[in-house]
Amino acid sequence: MVILLKKMKRNERIGAIVKILCDRPNYVYTLNYFTELFNSAKSTISEDLVIVKKIMEDLALGKVETIPGAAGGVKYLPVVNMQKRKQLFAEMISELQDRSRIIPGGYLYIADLLYNPKYVKLVGELFAEKFSNQAIDYVMTVETKGIPLAMMTASGLNVPLVIARNENKLTEGSTLSINYVSGSTGKVQTMYVAKKAVPRNSRVLIIDDFMRAGGTARGMVDLVNELDSEVVGVGVLIETNTPLKKMVEDHFSILLMDEIVDGEIAVEPNPNLLK
Amino acid sequence: MVILLKKMKRNERIGAIVKILCDRPNYVYTLNYFTELFNSAKSTISEDLVIVKKIMEDLALGKVETIPGAAGGVKYLPVVNMQKRKQLFAEMISELQDRSRIIPGGYLYIADLLYNPKYVKLVGELFAEKFSNQAIDYVMTVETKGIPLAMMTASGLNVPLVIARNENKLTEGSTLSINYVSGSTGKVQTMYVAKKAVPRNSRVLIIDDFMRAGGTARGMVDLVNELDSEVVGVGVLIETNTPLKKMVEDHFSILLMDEIVDGEIAVEPNPNLLK
Repeated sequence: MVILLKKMKRNERIGAIVKILCDRPNYVYTLNYFTELFNSAKSTISEDLVIVKKIMEDLALGKVETIPGAAGGVKYLPVVNMQKRKQLFAEMISELQDRSRIIPGGYLYIADLLYNPKYVKLVGELFAEKFSNQAIDYVMTVETKGIPLAMMTASGLNVPLVIARNENKLTEGSTLSINYVSGSTGKVQTMYVAKKAVPRNSRVLIIDDFMRAGGTARGMVDLVNELDSEVVGVGVLIETNTPLKKMVEDHFSILLMDEIVDGEIAVEPNPNLLK
Repeated sequence: MVILLKKMKRNERIGAIVKILCDRPNYVYTLNYFTELFNSAKSTISEDLVIVKKIMEDLALGKVETIPGAAGGVKYLPVVNMQKRKQLFAEMISELQDRSRIIPGGYLYIADLLYNPKYVKLVGELFAEKFSNQAIDYVMTVETKGIPLAMMTASGLNVPLVIARNENKLTEGSTLSINYVSGSTGKVQTMYVAKKAVPRNSRVLIIDDFMRAGGTARGMVDLVNELDSEVVGVGVLIETNTPLKKMVEDHFSILLMDEIVDGEIAVEPNPNLLK
């Protein structure tokens, strides 16, 4: 712990508390942590926290929750306010509609968006906001393109990420595997996960970058079931409107995309996110 | 922009400024951004920023830089202070020394550490702190295990990530490839990167999770050169002490590991990080 030679002013404590809370979302700091850090009375810190909570609410910068009782304390949860959502969706959609993204085979090149912290940090926070009340233990994805987004989601929820692999790697140790049908290629593929990665009875959130028929997400759902654990949510960045029926029933998508016709790329945000 | 109905108090503005700056490291906010947001005078915001800077310095929570001139403003850069470093290294080393991590083939299972935001967020900030003065344009890694760490580094530097693939994927469009010798398997492998991922004359930071002989990092260096761009740094989480001579000369490692003998896993932090 950093030793403070003299007492800090209220506005200095407020700034420091905001930084410490937001650096680690969904982590409960005790009141004692702050009373020791600032060498201040509990009543003083409690008043500071009321102000921190108010700042976050007034500017819709996040949510600060106070947990009462002996094991209590305070934690920060990410919130992506309406203004940020609208700007994020507008920017992503404008990028996605660039026709030069269409590559041979009718695929859309989206790796640059999926690897840009400007976008994936906010999308990860949107997923964290949506699923923060689900007591998630692990976020799972399958390599490769969805990993940055899944990592940002795991970071927003303060839980570990689990990555299913497309090949059985020596460095994973003993693995569990499942066959699945990729919606985009129609081919049967196999995915592997380290047996020690997910303990039994865990609550798992599945995150992926793209869903067409949902075969890959279905594979992950089956994998989680094989691990004697429970899927409590499926989050996807881009979902295609066709086929209408997906291989996973409950899922939550950020953007909805039509089939590409004559180079026209039609994308819209999930309307529920703008309510 | 959120509309404020009444003026905020100084301590409220301070809290909000800290949150906004830290949400987006290495991004320059103009003074106007804050004067409009808070409906306050420039002189008021300038005083607020002096306090924010002081808080960050006094508690070693980060670095706030003011950029003078017409294009000026203020930005936040991550700093991992000595106390956090010591705690991070101690926790990671204690985890790494668990003998049950040794898996058939003499490999060490480290995926759980590499996918845990608790560790990779701080390690990413350490890399961002180390390389923030290098005007980095892109962070590059090769799939799969180093991706979360590379993403956290890219996030700390506010630049896009580029992921080289081990297979030529349809969704990458036109790719550039290079052959390299993996230090751990001795086999010749190929890595691919989308041609449009890195424009010419970019400054690239290479990040990987593990370096034995440095063959994989060497492959990425060659790939960056083929893209007519420049490698300005190589950052690695764990480096083995043998072989002493690596295939890339300049590189920066967080942890140094001896060969595993009789199940003994000896790991130490890079001593330069504790100075």
